[in-house]
Amino acid sequence: MINLRSDNESKVFPEILDYMSKVNNEISKAYGEDKITKKAKSLITDFFETEVEVLFLVSGTAANSISLSAICPPFGSIFCSDNAHINLDECGAPEFYSGGAKLIPIKTINGLLSVNSLNTKIKNMGTHGVHEMLPSAISITQTSELGTVYSPDHIKNISSLAKKNNLKIHMDGARFANACAFLKCTPAEITWKSGVDILSLGATKNGALSCELVVVFNKKLFAHIDRRQKRSGHLLSKQKFIAAQIIKWIENDRWLQAANEANNKTREIITILKKNKKINIIYPVESNMIFAEIPLDLELHLKKNNLEFYNWPSKKNTLRFVISWNFENQDIDLIKNIF
Amino acid sequence: MINLRSDNESKVFPEILDYMSKVNNEISKAYGEDKITKKAKSLITDFFETEVEVLFLVSGTAANSISLSAICPPFGSIFCSDNAHINLDECGAPEFYSGGAKLIPIKTINGLLSVNSLNTKIKNMGTHGVHEMLPSAISITQTSELGTVYSPDHIKNISSLAKKNNLKIHMDGARFANACAFLKCTPAEITWKSGVDILSLGATKNGALSCELVVVFNKKLFAHIDRRQKRSGHLLSKQKFIAAQIIKWIENDRWLQAANEANNKTREIITILKKNKKINIIYPVESNMIFAEIPLDLELHLKKNNLEFYNWPSKKNTLRFVISWNFENQDIDLIKNIF
Amino acid sequence: MINLRSDNESKVFPEILDYMSKVNNEISKAYGEDKITKKAKSLITDFFETEVEVLFLVSGTAANSISLSAICPPFGSIFCSDNAHINLDECGAPEFYSGGAKLIPIKTINGLLSVNSLNTKIKNMGTHGVHEMLPSAISITQTSELGTVYSPDHIKNISSLAKKNNLKIHMDGARFANACAFLKCTPAEITWKSGVDILSLGATKNGALSCELVVVFNKKLFAHIDRRQKRSGHLLSKQKFIAAQIIKWIENDRWLQAANEANNKTREIITILKKNKKINIIYPVESNMIFAEIPLDLELHLKKNNLEFYNWPSKKNTLRFVISWNFENQDIDLIKNIF
Amino acid sequence: MINLRSDNESKVFPEILDYMSKVNNEISKAYGEDKITKKAKSLITDFFETEVEVLFLVSGTAANSISLSAICPPFGSIFCSDNAHINLDECGAPEFYSGGAKLIPIKTINGLLSVNSLNTKIKNMGTHGVHEMLPSAISITQTSELGTVYSPDHIKNISSLAKKNNLKIHMDGARFANACAFLKCTPAEITWKSGVDILSLGATKNGALSCELVVVFNKKLFAHIDRRQKRSGHLLSKQKFIAAQIIKWIENDRWLQAANEANNKTREIITILKKNKKINIIYPVESNMIFAEIPLDLELHLKKNNLEFYNWPSKKNTLRFVISWNFENQDIDLIKNIF
Repeated sequence: MINLRSDNESKVFPEILDYMSKVNNEISKAYGEDKITKKAKSLITDFFETEVEVLFLVSGTAANSISLSAICPPFGSIFCSDNAHINLDECGAPEFYSGGAKLIPIKTINGLLSVNSLNTKIKNMGTHGVHEMLPSAISITQTSELGTVYSPDHIKNISSLAKKNNLKIHMDGARFANACAFLKCTPAEITWKSGVDILSLGATKNGALSCELVVVFNKKLFAHIDRRQKRSGHLLSKQKFIAAQIIKWIENDRWLQAANEANNKTREIITILKKNKKINIIYPVESNMIFAEIPLDLELHLKKNNLEFYNWPSKKNTLRFVISWNFENQDIDLIKNIF
Repeated sequence: MINLRSDNESKVFPEILDYMSKVNNEISKAYGEDKITKKAKSLITDFFETEVEVLFLVSGTAANSISLSAICPPFGSIFCSDNAHINLDECGAPEFYSGGAKLIPIKTINGLLSVNSLNTKIKNMGTHGVHEMLPSAISITQTSELGTVYSPDHIKNISSLAKKNNLKIHMDGARFANACAFLKCTPAEITWKSGVDILSLGATKNGALSCELVVVFNKKLFAHIDRRQKRSGHLLSKQKFIAAQIIKWIENDRWLQAANEANNKTREIITILKKNKKINIIYPVESNMIFAEIPLDLELHLKKNNLEFYNWPSKKNTLRFVISWNFENQDIDLIKNIF
Repeated sequence: MINLRSDNESKVFPEILDYMSKVNNEISKAYGEDKITKKAKSLITDFFETEVEVLFLVSGTAANSISLSAICPPFGSIFCSDNAHINLDECGAPEFYSGGAKLIPIKTINGLLSVNSLNTKIKNMGTHGVHEMLPSAISITQTSELGTVYSPDHIKNISSLAKKNNLKIHMDGARFANACAFLKCTPAEITWKSGVDILSLGATKNGALSCELVVVFNKKLFAHIDRRQKRSGHLLSKQKFIAAQIIKWIENDRWLQAANEANNKTREIITILKKNKKINIIYPVESNMIFAEIPLDLELHLKKNNLEFYNWPSKKNTLRFVISWNFENQDIDLIKNIF
Repeated sequence: MINLRSDNESKVFPEILDYMSKVNNEISKAYGEDKITKKAKSLITDFFETEVEVLFLVSGTAANSISLSAICPPFGSIFCSDNAHINLDECGAPEFYSGGAKLIPIKTINGLLSVNSLNTKIKNMGTHGVHEMLPSAISITQTSELGTVYSPDHIKNISSLAKKNNLKIHMDGARFANACAFLKCTPAEITWKSGVDILSLGATKNGALSCELVVVFNKKLFAHIDRRQKRSGHLLSKQKFIAAQIIKWIENDRWLQAANEANNKTREIITILKKNKKINIIYPVESNMIFAEIPLDLELHLKKNNLEFYNWPSKKNTLRFVISWNFENQDIDLIKNIF
């Protein structure tokens, strides 16, 4: 079987599992008052080259929702892409956590929100007083749900617009590492240095077991965000095992190597696919995801050859291929033969 | 250091960590559609000797809150002990998940709700129509927060009262294993066979890494409870790693052995403590927790001898000692010398 | 000044105010346990030719939100028009009351949801399991926000689709009377006889002071909806004064006469407007609202002549004129001279 | 029938109803952008001798809940009396509006929170970090639910404690007028001059139809409180009719006269009751409410003589008598004969 379903199914770095076993032998205080958590926080501060506040969580939905509830009141609205995971794939978690805030989905260019479309949407609001929800935040996904990547300048332009309109910026970084790898940027450059206030940093899709962080750059936002974590059941007694994951994820640039692996293999696969005239690649391939319009007979052929993938809702028959960091070179050879 | 702080700090069974490493080498579908989850569900069904629905979670607060939100409407009330973890230690998670339900704390006898006090409280309500919240559920904690244990008959009497009053029964089983060990009862006997509708089954305090289940015995309650899991960010993509934990927890009665270890060592320690006339044991010791009134000078003496514990809020100076499954025999010898 | 701003500014029937004064002289129990409420309920049952449950409220937003929260769980979604008042003008009240449900706005034909577009949207959902919110209800506005009216057959087709898909039907009847007047239908015909489960019946825009009802046709939906009323602060101690309003509103078909007045005067005005080639009437005029594309110079001319109205957000310069039941004939003459 | 049930059933000042009829003849903008609202705001500013922000509402539950949600986050707690209306009689409205905050009921002395008991409770909290809800506010009821009244000094002491602990002060003023009448204090003296941040000002029990205000003294609290009003369905289109009520309530000190009427008649009745040795008056009578322990045979006698009242939940048989402003002198004579 060749697995192109999702990087949700990627392998955990063996170094992480080994370290978790090691950490098990230490006596540690519960609820994050342990040395492993402390060490992780220090590494994360280095990672972002600035003091940050961190919450250690186990799902991206939790990271996104806690973040959004910290920057948007119950009567507020959040601008996001119409493909946004927060809008389509979290069963209303942002609405639940915020106490009823509203997501305002906006059409994108290849998955990326343009400053123009944001500006138009923002201008159209605010004319209707209290009858309308209060525009409060913009959420962008880096890497986007369509596999494309915001440049630092793009982010800066969005955050400049946000500041003008008194909006906070959240970044859903479920595939943050892949974006850094593509842009050859530091984590700092595409977050706080570009005006991001709060980040969901996902490690799970890129080699962690279940490790998703909320990273707060804007300290004012932090007040009591830890109570939001607790009251949603996301403060783990044995938090050290999440902290352990991020330590080994950051150490030795393991995160970046893995993301480069995934991105590079994706580039190899796209080269193969482009040779097949029946296939139409529909978005720029900038990370580890490929969206391809494919005729039904070819789809059938792929299935017969044990290629696993997900269909993507679209007018034309569209497949999504996701390449994990641990995708094997031998599977690339198999792909060559199938396409 | 002799650690009597909390079983939250207990060691993970090495078999669990080994199995997690093994499971990492399998390709598995995300979000619980994998074989490990399937295997876990089958084992849990055997464990309870009945068909159940299961949610795989990482915290007891999540398990309790999702359970309560499934059995109590936003305008409902839940009777619980005034020491209940849901009432004092979850930063309002039940209120958050339920959308505003109210906990009605009731005084207990040694941590256990009596049928009489429940009956009195229930009778006093319901006279005030819509101005009052709708009595909807009773939540009991097994093992209780004070280390005591409900007998099957006690539970049956409570659930009989509940049924009469149209209330559902939730059991917070953060230390469920210790209760089974004490009672020498099967899991079935003190849950559905005694009228429990929904259970938070905690494994984390007894040898798991982060593994807390919602177990639904009353099928009618299940409708869409999985959406409550998702929308609270508690559906993990790599859920197989939680399923793996419960598999090794159940296999070979590892859970019961560990609970017996903890309970037995607690009995040894209580024997030591009872010899010291300065110490007043305040609740029946039926599991792995000891609550002791202790003079301040003795407390100081314990600290000097590197005994670690938590103070318990009370009028008299009270300490709580919790004994984990992995508490070492050599530490018991040390305790002998200290007291 | 000629007031075409909104029927929100319409006069209260003098008979209502007189009756409120009369009712003030009676001693009545609070919170709806009074004879005036009882009489009102009886009249409403006659009005709809069936047993119904009624909540007496003071705002349409409250009526809509309580209704929606009764038919949609916190993790559910509600299909509605993209112009829907619940979507644009209630500052997130449906999200608040439901505990986080999501409105799914759908493009309309002249303000009316087509069965086709609903069907397409419904089919596109439900493929994504728990990651997606649970489709739970359809909300239609009768008279629509664009002044158009659903025929009984149209409603029947929508509710037939709803039933097939396990969805409940809510009708926002802020201008319910105007629709009845236009269709020459009874209230029963366009509600429960056409499959509507729950109705927000608005009287305020049509001669009441502040009187909006929730009318429940589907008895199963009623369980505890009165607690939703209470816990949102919408159960008035002196409820008899709301009941008094609906009594005089229904008596002598005062509601229907007023709606006919408004609709007829609207027809007179539309005849005037159609003579002016510069004006483009953009939706069928079926009630008491006119939407007109008008050049800026003509708009200025109207303003100079003390015509008051609201601008409607649109690409072309668009004005909304709303005609109240108490619009004066002499003002129609003035309009003739202005246009 | 002699009605001592509740001042919820009190008559509306005829001047209010007359003025509502007058106001009906004016064309007014909807949603509070009208001249009557403006006039009311100006009168309220005079009433409190300071600039305030005001919300015009129709129920005390709404006023309380909107206020509390403005001063307490979803993860916060609110100290209140164990008899507090917000705790017992609002079906969880504060929990609903705040998004899950918790009320911490405290035993009182005759319905009044003592500084000591508050201080003890506050000190016992805050030791448990994020596991505990964040103490955020104190809510006091003036006149209390037991008919007693806080002196200005008492309020100042409570607010001084509040300030030290970073808590906001809410006053539930459902019977605010009766307290002013008893204390011979100005509204300013027992609110902002004594440290109150936000007030629910009730007029309904004292001669209005349905008129309850939120009065914000602490401007910082105001940010967006108007959106909380809107999204709960409490912004009325014809708000002028609420504004009209408060205008006539304030004008000519009608509010104070009515409260004095009620308080004075209560004093007359208490004089009668005290002559009967079988009756035990249990709380100081400082406003328009009497709580009396009464033997069952006397209760029966009262009922036979058409005296209407409510029973009060208590260990001994207890009746509550409430005297409205419009209680008739002739009924006092009847009472003399009955007791």
